[in-house]
Amino acid sequence: MPDFYSDHKELLDRAVIATGERTYWSAYPEHPKAYAAEAGAQGEAAFNELLGTEFATDQAHDGYMDVAESSPFGVDLAITYPRTDVATVIEAATSAMKDWGRTSADERAGVCLEILDRLSASSFLMGHAVMHTTGQAFFMAFQAGGPHALDRALEAVAYAYAEQKRLPEDLRWEKPQGSRPPLVIDKRWIVRPRGVAVTIGVSTFPTWNGYPGIFASLACGNAVIVKPHPETILPLALVVRTAREVIAEAGFSPDVVQLLVDAPGNLVAKDLVMSPEVGIVDYTGGTGFGNWLEDNVHHADVYTEKAGVNSVIVDSAPDLAGVFKNLSVSMTMYSGQMCTTPQNVFIPQTGVAVGDDMVPYDDVVSGFVSAIDGLLGDDARAAGILGAVKGEATLLRVDEAGAGATVLSSSRSIDNPDFPGAVVRTPTIIEVDADSDVYNHEMFGPVIYIVRTRSTEDSIERAKSAALRSGAITWLAYTADESTMNEVIDAAIEAGVSVAFNLTGGLFVNQSAAFSDFHVTGANGAGNASLTDPAFVARRFITIGIRIEP
Amino acid sequence: MPDFYSDHKELLDRAVIATGERTYWSAYPEHPKAYAAEAGAQGEAAFNELLGTEFATDQAHDGYMDVAESSPFGVDLAITYPRTDVATVIEAATSAMKDWGRTSADERAGVCLEILDRLSASSFLMGHAVMHTTGQAFFMAFQAGGPHALDRALEAVAYAYAEQKRLPEDLRWEKPQGSRPPLVIDKRWIVRPRGVAVTIGVSTFPTWNGYPGIFASLACGNAVIVKPHPETILPLALVVRTAREVIAEAGFSPDVVQLLVDAPGNLVAKDLVMSPEVGIVDYTGGTGFGNWLEDNVHHADVYTEKAGVNSVIVDSAPDLAGVFKNLSVSMTMYSGQMCTTPQNVFIPQTGVAVGDDMVPYDDVVSGFVSAIDGLLGDDARAAGILGAVKGEATLLRVDEAGAGATVLSSSRSIDNPDFPGAVVRTPTIIEVDADSDVYNHEMFGPVIYIVRTRSTEDSIERAKSAALRSGAITWLAYTADESTMNEVIDAAIEAGVSVAFNLTGGLFVNQSAAFSDFHVTGANGAGNASLTDPAFVARRFITIGIRIEP
Repeated sequence: MPDFYSDHKELLDRAVIATGERTYWSAYPEHPKAYAAEAGAQGEAAFNELLGTEFATDQAHDGYMDVAESSPFGVDLAITYPRTDVATVIEAATSAMKDWGRTSADERAGVCLEILDRLSASSFLMGHAVMHTTGQAFFMAFQAGGPHALDRALEAVAYAYAEQKRLPEDLRWEKPQGSRPPLVIDKRWIVRPRGVAVTIGVSTFPTWNGYPGIFASLACGNAVIVKPHPETILPLALVVRTAREVIAEAGFSPDVVQLLVDAPGNLVAKDLVMSPEVGIVDYTGGTGFGNWLEDNVHHADVYTEKAGVNSVIVDSAPDLAGVFKNLSVSMTMYSGQMCTTPQNVFIPQTGVAVGDDMVPYDDVVSGFVSAIDGLLGDDARAAGILGAVKGEATLLRVDEAGAGATVLSSSRSIDNPDFPGAVVRTPTIIEVDADSDVYNHEMFGPVIYIVRTRSTEDSIERAKSAALRSGAITWLAYTADESTMNEVIDAAIEAGVSVAFNLTGGLFVNQSAAFSDFHVTGANGAGNASLTDPAFVARRFITIGIRIEP
Repeated sequence: MPDFYSDHKELLDRAVIATGERTYWSAYPEHPKAYAAEAGAQGEAAFNELLGTEFATDQAHDGYMDVAESSPFGVDLAITYPRTDVATVIEAATSAMKDWGRTSADERAGVCLEILDRLSASSFLMGHAVMHTTGQAFFMAFQAGGPHALDRALEAVAYAYAEQKRLPEDLRWEKPQGSRPPLVIDKRWIVRPRGVAVTIGVSTFPTWNGYPGIFASLACGNAVIVKPHPETILPLALVVRTAREVIAEAGFSPDVVQLLVDAPGNLVAKDLVMSPEVGIVDYTGGTGFGNWLEDNVHHADVYTEKAGVNSVIVDSAPDLAGVFKNLSVSMTMYSGQMCTTPQNVFIPQTGVAVGDDMVPYDDVVSGFVSAIDGLLGDDARAAGILGAVKGEATLLRVDEAGAGATVLSSSRSIDNPDFPGAVVRTPTIIEVDADSDVYNHEMFGPVIYIVRTRSTEDSIERAKSAALRSGAITWLAYTADESTMNEVIDAAIEAGVSVAFNLTGGLFVNQSAAFSDFHVTGANGAGNASLTDPAFVARRFITIGIRIEP
């Protein structure tokens, strides 16, 4: 039997240290050049070979089903997936969990890291799978879907492992009784899984958002049922296949990880999570179903990452060029389809202080719009930044957002020379008054609101109010004034939003680094959990105390 | 301003170490002789002075209200408490939480430990308060209500403190960019409270069960509203008074801790917990309201300790005298009103192996009954063990339990020479067949079921089934056989119950030691949380990330 724990112990221990240090650290190389020279071509070929095929699986199934998986780049995926049902996967998971739940935290962590290792080796395949199901441009799909997601997975394993290892080894407890003999008892603690874990995948970042829950649950001994988004299946199907291979090699039932695919008209997530055997639900996706889960699933712990209204507060800056440069990238990459993308830019009608000058409101607005128009002026470059739009609902939102509004820049279609069927749209930029209500709701996708406020204080208050009403994951503020910075921080604390200041270089507010940034605070409507902190893992296992009188 | 953190730093650090070691450790002396010679008399006098008075408070109130607080020892308490309402305490808590939530984890831990220090100094007063409101005999009331509860409070503070301190200090994050300059960003993390915390007290162990939630929430920056059980108010009222004194001395609004008292006919717990400002609810009490909280409170984290059906499995033993001696004490102390008291004793009809002999079932049963009858044969000693029965519902249950059943020993009233009005009842011991259903339900109070099973395997199966149906906190098994021990452990793991083996000495299964035993696993209907583990504290604060481009 392979000894995956020994194989990966060094990396595991390093990762545990990284969760405490939170300085820069990464385990999986993000640069394509760090991989074998032929890896890129092999990954693309492997992806192409999957098109139009039955997705091979060793899990119990009743043939293969057509699905609604779609490619925003217009590629005809036509992959069919194993057809099974809730009862079958629940029963198999419950059975497989017995041995997996009783083995050591060491062994489980070793298996998890071997899975990550193999997924890393196929990061180019994953990159293409993520690209063509989510609409991310290849470079983002490769990085966010591959190494960055793997870092988040490793982080979750490290937390889950460390938390289990906080329990002491077997020990003798002796309580003095004055002149009488002490009370003596031998104690040990056994970790068991909470219950069957369900991960409900998202259409846009299936691996990056899915890995933390999947791997934290696995590392704590739970069996995991992966239910991908009906329109984005392949990336998580690849994960399940790799996981099952490794788990079987380690001598466990591969049903520790299973795939359950559904399609519109026969959605299974509700049935699945309401099964009494389920103890954990991890969800990333829209607010509606996230709220349903939080309100209706009482027999299991529910971890949600939903949606929010992220804000930029522009108060003052040494110069505006860096502000516009940074903002134009962060607000357009992947067409605003990141849950961390800013939606609202709050600008005071009194203007923005730049050094000793006050740049008038209108100039700030036109500078911002010009920066975005300039960045996206070249179609080929624009296509590389914007990727493609996933989902009909987002397209519809873009079209409707401009109706009756003050449109500063209209969304336009862009041709992608490599993929003629790609659905590529520049953002609609809309100007609204702070008293408008429209910007308080999430407009997922390429829709940007410039909000004209009375003052920076007003901007802060509006951003806070939007976050408390609709949730928020990120704020970005530009200010050269320390007391204003502190006001923004105070508001961010109250709103439960993490905040970045004065980003003008190559770091974007959308980006959340594993082993350093906590993604989502859990303190507002954008989600009830954080990726990854101790709270995210600590309830995924149960501690049973054993006392034996010697 | 006092520096409570420095005053208590040494104890705090030691307590954090103890949570990891889990060998015997205690901070507050459990022996009355460890206190000043006059402490006992002073504590009793202080208690007597409270009788018939208005409970002095500095919190906003609208006069004093009559309550349903009752003494199972028949003492006329006649204490009135400040009358206030949900809106008032929620508003005051929200306001007070601002400063408290923004100060350091160090300072908050120091304040918490100063509160515990002062409560420890008045442990005799607390002992009398707990005795006369719960019905515990004085010695138990002193120990469990005073030092043992304080140990559990300190444990909760230690966990909450350590969890907050896992976050690093401010740091600079530098990500290499190959030949280009690195990405550089300064990071800090700010802890904020989750929200107003509510503790709903229990009638039997108000401090032991209440402290972990109260002090974990306080240590994490939350303001706490204490809503005692309508019939057991004084102990937690004393805690609130002491906490407010210390918090005010430390320079914070005393409304960080408030008392909200209610009375039958005007119960406020539902209104209180449904307030949107509430972020945390800690509850100990009956299953009905506990389930209601779990099912209906979605905007706050709910930690419950409800009720269960605890079991004893008798398989084999070197001799039965020690078994009977240990069991007779554990099953009668405080009249079975501990959530950890065994209710069911499973005995195989085939008898119990004692060394090379097989003691017939009937002899085991009669030996057990004789041990209990013998222990309680002397009225004065019995009164000291049994304490008094709290609540009409429990009395009624005892009376009804025997109806139509095979009663091996009938409950009888006992006179307490010191308290003529005390309600003291010996347990009813009932024999049932394993196929009966009656023992699968909790019979809180002095009711014992002897369950005749087909075999030890049958006993284990029945105990597991009862735990999975009705919850369970403790199992106690007697076996000289290692494979049987492993079968019991396997069943305990599946049932989510902690288990003790072969207790024949001075340690009783009912007892759960702070800094060593995790009370309740959170894996069955007896409760959804554990006192105290990292999961109990990790969600009581929120981490806000701040990134600043240098």
